[in-house]
Amino acid sequence: MTAVVHGNAAGLEGVRVAEVPAPRPGPGEVVVALRAAGLNHRDLFLVDARGPGDAPVVLGSDGAGVVVAAGPGAAVAPGTEVVVNPSLGWDEPGDVPEVPAILGVPTDGTFAEQVVVPAKNVAPKPAHLGWAEAAALPLAALTAYRALFTRGGLRAGEHVLLPGIGSGVATFALAMAKAAGATVSVTSRSPGKCRRARELGADHAIGSAEDWRAALGPVDLVVDSVGSATFGKCLSVLRPGGRLVSLGATTGAEVGLSLREMFFRQISVLGTSMGSAREFERMLALVAEHRIRPVVHGTFPLDDGPRALAGLAAGDQFGKLVLTVDP
Amino acid sequence: MTAVVHGNAAGLEGVRVAEVPAPRPGPGEVVVALRAAGLNHRDLFLVDARGPGDAPVVLGSDGAGVVVAAGPGAAVAPGTEVVVNPSLGWDEPGDVPEVPAILGVPTDGTFAEQVVVPAKNVAPKPAHLGWAEAAALPLAALTAYRALFTRGGLRAGEHVLLPGIGSGVATFALAMAKAAGATVSVTSRSPGKCRRARELGADHAIGSAEDWRAALGPVDLVVDSVGSATFGKCLSVLRPGGRLVSLGATTGAEVGLSLREMFFRQISVLGTSMGSAREFERMLALVAEHRIRPVVHGTFPLDDGPRALAGLAAGDQFGKLVLTVDP
Repeated sequence: MTAVVHGNAAGLEGVRVAEVPAPRPGPGEVVVALRAAGLNHRDLFLVDARGPGDAPVVLGSDGAGVVVAAGPGAAVAPGTEVVVNPSLGWDEPGDVPEVPAILGVPTDGTFAEQVVVPAKNVAPKPAHLGWAEAAALPLAALTAYRALFTRGGLRAGEHVLLPGIGSGVATFALAMAKAAGATVSVTSRSPGKCRRARELGADHAIGSAEDWRAALGPVDLVVDSVGSATFGKCLSVLRPGGRLVSLGATTGAEVGLSLREMFFRQISVLGTSMGSAREFERMLALVAEHRIRPVVHGTFPLDDGPRALAGLAAGDQFGKLVLTVDP
Repeated sequence: MTAVVHGNAAGLEGVRVAEVPAPRPGPGEVVVALRAAGLNHRDLFLVDARGPGDAPVVLGSDGAGVVVAAGPGAAVAPGTEVVVNPSLGWDEPGDVPEVPAILGVPTDGTFAEQVVVPAKNVAPKPAHLGWAEAAALPLAALTAYRALFTRGGLRAGEHVLLPGIGSGVATFALAMAKAAGATVSVTSRSPGKCRRARELGADHAIGSAEDWRAALGPVDLVVDSVGSATFGKCLSVLRPGGRLVSLGATTGAEVGLSLREMFFRQISVLGTSMGSAREFERMLALVAEHRIRPVVHGTFPLDDGPRALAGLAAGDQFGKLVLTVDP
């Protein structure tokens, strides 16, 4: 089968389209014939971290498709249309794993005609979504769900701030927070992204350089993936007792913190990453109930996988990039 | 009446015993004839922060005594033995006030023969406690309760670490965490404090300079008031998904933080201070149910208030200092 693999060279140079053996299901596993596979920054981090001597591997964590084979004990009927949960071996929200296992490196991932996963890692595709939309969900929507609800404790009527709107996680967080009855503010350096966020339902969209506190007033919850460039502003905009959920640090991870501000203002800083099987279920239920549509920035055929990844690396997307696979 | 007041000079020099008018109850208020009044580091912070021109004020946040007068609408019978909740105007745990109001500066406090407080700020004295023990409870036990349970989410069977055992808050946290079925570890620079903590039920007591992770293994929750000297070690000892509750910074408040460690290991850093009326009730219920006895390091007659405060400032206590008032 055709797949986008990494090997033989470090970094993006090692990404290529190749013919590899089709997977076969072991006990409790299913094979999914993919119709689409979403890209994540994780794919780029892995490509950058792998050396030229590492064995070739199929990239990709996100996918949606049709079950075509089931191993012994795998109770999913062939023909079922599914979305893949890339979080492996993590069942309950509170049981944070020492090292989260994620589909796609070290095991073969979703940028391929087929992928093999545990049967419990597939769920029915939300009926209102096309294949590319469904394949855009898994990692980013799961991360956004856990950040907002499990970690951030978001309640209806609260005011949420999403600095640096445009990433997959942030665009899902925008849709989910609105669905949950929150007021949502976003920031961006790009007027175009601010406009786009308003079209998608953001109540306030301001430039990154503005005075956030003056422009937005006190905020209950911030979900941030920008890191050092925004950390201080995130804290300054929180009400007493407010929460900052941190899930990334694209501008740098080292920050300074005043414990005095933390305890006098009773601030919470909460790290989060990915999510559990239970949260994946709840995320899909929320997406279905509110007919949330992932924001897909663009699609590429599977054969253009290397070009799509290079685009993500260069990129200034608003929403997700997705590979499509012809059946 | 006799009282320990601050005024006319900055710092500890301004603390003196004086005769002041006895308070009278307004609507919804009661007057408590104090039998004992506990000291807190807050008293010292206030004394240090006040200037020589500030109006004289009766110091003290903690107290226990007998209700001797009630204003209109105050439904507490004279003769009732009570403990005073110093948290003013904060009812529910989630409604964190912009600036918490605490009895004792700017309004007159408990280092006196009598104090006036809202009737809803007195609760029946736990029957198993003497006056000095009851007066040692309020601020420190309320802070410890909120830190462990409301903010820290402590559950039975978890492993709690209390760096720098010896403070009032830490000794209450030790007793409450044991009562809740947790394993409790403590650290101290003092072998004597380690020994004392073991006598009070600590499962492990280690020197501050030891390798915490090697000595204690992974910890679910740390409740820290030491600050910059321990912050990094507190984070290093947490399991993935672990929580650090920060309620003080005696060694300094400015710390460095790796957001990458926060989100990969899903750490929570949670600031806390004081607590609400609801938490005060729950704290008293826990103290009564488990017959928790505050650790009183020493008592002083009210007239020795200035000397007691100087001792707290110099101090190397294990547990609380308390002023006693003859009826």
